Amino acid sequence: MVLYPEIIERLLEKLKKLPGIGPKSAERIIYYLIQQKDADVISLGEAIISLKNKVKLCRRCFNFSEGELCNICLDEKRENIICVVEEVKDLISIEKTNFKGRYHVLWGKISILDNIKPEELKIPQLIERIKNEKVEEVIIATNPTMEGENTSIYISEILKKIGIKHSRLAIGLPVGSELEYIDTQTLKKAIEGRREL
Amino acid sequence: MVLYPEIIERLLEKLKKLPGIGPKSAERIIYYLIQQKDADVISLGEAIISLKNKVKLCRRCFNFSEGELCNICLDEKRENIICVVEEVKDLISIEKTNFKGRYHVLWGKISILDNIKPEELKIPQLIERIKNEKVEEVIIATNPTMEGENTSIYISEILKKIGIKHSRLAIGLPVGSELEYIDTQTLKKAIEGRREL
Repeated sequence: MVLYPEIIERLLEKLKKLPGIGPKSAERIIYYLIQQKDADVISLGEAIISLKNKVKLCRRCFNFSEGELCNICLDEKRENIICVVEEVKDLISIEKTNFKGRYHVLWGKISILDNIKPEELKIPQLIERIKNEKVEEVIIATNPTMEGENTSIYISEILKKIGIKHSRLAIGLPVGSELEYIDTQTLKKAIEGRREL
Repeated sequence: MVLYPEIIERLLEKLKKLPGIGPKSAERIIYYLIQQKDADVISLGEAIISLKNKVKLCRRCFNFSEGELCNICLDEKRENIICVVEEVKDLISIEKTNFKGRYHVLWGKISILDNIKPEELKIPQLIERIKNEKVEEVIIATNPTMEGENTSIYISEILKKIGIKHSRLAIGLPVGSELEYIDTQTLKKAIEGRREL
């Protein structure tokens, strides 16, 4: 019985380990690559290799960075407000709002289910930063999920003890949404968080 | 506004082109890779590069091959029965049944919707093979889908003219299935194709 050549089997194994890629999609990717131009496939391989060679994490805020400090940390015009996010993709989302402060990427959220403890996230480093930097405010921008909320509460307790001003992103109705389609929990939070006009 | 470092943006673009990978999964793959060991990521990149350097298509049957001819074509014990399949993955499936003949991979199926014509598949090469090799029988093993059926009919017409014995995989009930869950078309084909006992 003949299966794939050794090289393909090896690549299949590696691709299957990537998030969201199962055995069938790994096969489809290989069929696709085999049919592409040599140069395109080689440049994909090289881009993956250079990811590890050239991208590191900013030693201050843990954003992606090509140097010791990321471009945001190097930007002296940024305000000393730290926005705490779970992942770099959340930082990217907030950047798009034209937020002009700084960030701190936790690289995850506290999770009882997945057994992720505060020490495994960049929480100790956040506390260290707050003690050493002149921080005006900390905005906790973890996701409004159960685990994101728990992480927010945990961080908030610490910040209260340190005595630093901190806030949480508002929970409410998304812009352009219609009340009849909003879930009850969100609507309840929107009422609680109503703003006087 | 700061987005990802250049290297990440470039890799995102490349990953998004792969089949089944959208912008979100491309991001998730990058987060995953960033957190893996250097050696693992580098070996993934290298495996992709060597795919193009080392794997080609067998010049006879168009199976994947590390040399001019694939291991199946080189195997002199194989019978001279050619099983025609759409893709290499179909060849792999048939190999698992312990089939001891040879193969011919079409690299697709005739499709009016996708505008794929017979000349774009390995059909001319199949005809050439049949004329030059001592072939006892051709088993058409394209998928039992509309396009697979059309491809089968097209090839069958040609083989009739050449005057070579050829057959089509049986359509019927899958082993272990239950009649109540079988679609009507399959059941109809199973009745038409019934075998005398």
